Amino acid sequence: MRGALFFDVFGTLVDWRSGVARAVRETLEPRGFTLDWPAFADDWRAQYQPTMARVRDGARPFTILDDLHRENVAPVLARHGVSGLDAATIDELVLAWRRLDAWPDVAEGLARLRPHYLLAPVSNGNVALMTGLARRNGLVWDAILGAEHARDYKPKPDVYLAACRAFDLPPERCTMVAAHTNDLVAAAACGLKTAHIARPDEHGPGRGERAPGCAVDHAARDLFELAQKLIR
Amino acid sequence: MRGALFFDVFGTLVDWRSGVARAVRETLEPRGFTLDWPAFADDWRAQYQPTMARVRDGARPFTILDDLHRENVAPVLARHGVSGLDAATIDELVLAWRRLDAWPDVAEGLARLRPHYLLAPVSNGNVALMTGLARRNGLVWDAILGAEHARDYKPKPDVYLAACRAFDLPPERCTMVAAHTNDLVAAAACGLKTAHIARPDEHGPGRGERAPGCAVDHAARDLFELAQKLIR
Repeated sequence: MRGALFFDVFGTLVDWRSGVARAVRETLEPRGFTLDWPAFADDWRAQYQPTMARVRDGARPFTILDDLHRENVAPVLARHGVSGLDAATIDELVLAWRRLDAWPDVAEGLARLRPHYLLAPVSNGNVALMTGLARRNGLVWDAILGAEHARDYKPKPDVYLAACRAFDLPPERCTMVAAHTNDLVAAAACGLKTAHIARPDEHGPGRGERAPGCAVDHAARDLFELAQKLIR
Repeated sequence: MRGALFFDVFGTLVDWRSGVARAVRETLEPRGFTLDWPAFADDWRAQYQPTMARVRDGARPFTILDDLHRENVAPVLARHGVSGLDAATIDELVLAWRRLDAWPDVAEGLARLRPHYLLAPVSNGNVALMTGLARRNGLVWDAILGAEHARDYKPKPDVYLAACRAFDLPPERCTMVAAHTNDLVAAAACGLKTAHIARPDEHGPGRGERAPGCAVDHAARDLFELAQKLIR
């Protein structure tokens, strides 16, 4: 093994925006609602950072992302004029985040990397969420690391460092792979190597990071190019 | 998915006694030592329960098994008349526990179960140890659960319950698979289903559990038979 590759998941490996929009539509349209589905996905995702911030600041104990998603969907439903959903329907909405599709290069890209590196998601998503996405998309991980393992949320340093410790590797043998500059800046500050993956359409057509906004060890169009660069 | 299968690892999936004896011999014989290698493995393993008991009792904070193995090898080396080893050699001994071979049915047995169940080790071994054994033996897990995830040691209830929570499954949809009655008794007390695997030679020829010493949901000779019983 040449070390470990740690992957951000939402945006970097899976297309959360289209996937949440589709899954929410599948749940709500049969119940008579017609919404701006991508806007609903954007609004739900927008709750993500402020809610996690309260955990990072110690204002509330660690709470898994599934539970934050459940809390956060209520104001988003209200804003989009949806009311009267029962608990089972809310649960089905929360599970939308486990039914996202990976970008087309991901399953095969990870399979090419796996003979050479230990692979783990280091995401803010919880274990069940990561496992659901892995099974849906045929991703094979050595372990599920990240927020639930560290009991805190990225970009707090211990989430990256706990992942390195879990694999018994020094940070310099671990590479954080993400489509988000802020994730890579935080990982680099902990001594990890960094790789940026371009996901120019993450937030809708043309609304994603086409290139890193910081110095990185590797920058690639997709996991195929990353594999080419890492495996010589 | 029909639920989750949680696996004990040392004894149930891997032959720790032969493996530790072999790996320790590979490290110490070239350095001029000739020991009773299986007895060394037995003595090292015998330190396991008392050291973990101090973590379970709250007498010391959670400490991963790799570190307990490192502490515990010192008195065992002394008892076997070995002294003067440098830190790198001690590290190599500790890594013996990552170089164990699975029993012959394990890799293929898990592969047969994997399309139908989420699979995770729920072992007292830490993530790096589990990952090392998985890579060596071609085992594919959905997540590495168990002691490091729960930050406590089996048979404490929360280790089993934390594993169920991680997969977002109620205990009755999770089955603990082990070659040890005490592990199954503890899991059953938490509401998990149980499956016993016979490993009659775990502690040397004829010195292992041939059958469960408690009521179980399933008892099998090996993982092939378990797969036959579970997948209909």
